[in-house]
Amino acid sequence: MFSLNPRLEADTFFVCDLKISRLLLMNDSNYMWFILVPRKPELVELIDLTENEQIEVLREINQIGKILKTEFAADKLNIAALGNVVKQLHIHVIGRKNNDIAFPKPVWGYGNERPYSQIAAEVIITKIKSLLQNG
Amino acid sequence: MFSLNPRLEADTFFVCDLKISRLLLMNDSNYMWFILVPRKPELVELIDLTENEQIEVLREINQIGKILKTEFAADKLNIAALGNVVKQLHIHVIGRKNNDIAFPKPVWGYGNERPYSQIAAEVIITKIKSLLQNG
Repeated sequence: MFSLNPRLEADTFFVCDLKISRLLLMNDSNYMWFILVPRKPELVELIDLTENEQIEVLREINQIGKILKTEFAADKLNIAALGNVVKQLHIHVIGRKNNDIAFPKPVWGYGNERPYSQIAAEVIITKIKSLLQNG
Repeated sequence: MFSLNPRLEADTFFVCDLKISRLLLMNDSNYMWFILVPRKPELVELIDLTENEQIEVLREINQIGKILKTEFAADKLNIAALGNVVKQLHIHVIGRKNNDIAFPKPVWGYGNERPYSQIAAEVIITKIKSLLQNG
């Protein structure tokens, strides 16, 4: 049975379940920072997925990436599967702005997290869900 | 025409050309750090590739990732397309060890680079090329 790592759960908002992954919004309003978690138990590495599953994840990365570029005006996408701390396979899909707080540094470990208000998070979640449905 | 970004060229050793990507070895012996550069001009984002090209890159990521796990005893793979500084699309495929100098932090910006001796780099390049041919 799939279950979300407690640290990922604590740090994010649930957006929706896509075909293979759970889509989460990182609770840091400095960036448009989404996380895809393939809903299969015991995953650690990207190579733990079958090729077909990987291709499905790739499609979901593309979907989010295109929305970040076109609808949220991201200057650069940062896509990464690291997992050095939280072992459960999760893929970061982050929209960076040339003037965001950490740019051009990576976001991980930069600090100065700025949690969303409940309302701001809901606005983004509603928008991304509507874009995913119409995309 | 494809040409390699000068900064990528300066920081790496050429390993070989795979089906779609140029494979490079980062000149930092703290990690087993490879970089895939799809050989198509003007690429910036992963989503600039067609789906078929992306799938080919995915296969190359898998190939390198499996070699890092099985032949170089990596504890964790770090796979990432960032490109905040060097814009040319390139994908990091890094084998991390639980006791490497930066672990569990990401490698980017950690500093303390330890360049390879020419001989050490050649040993690794020969090994990876032989594994790729037989894999």
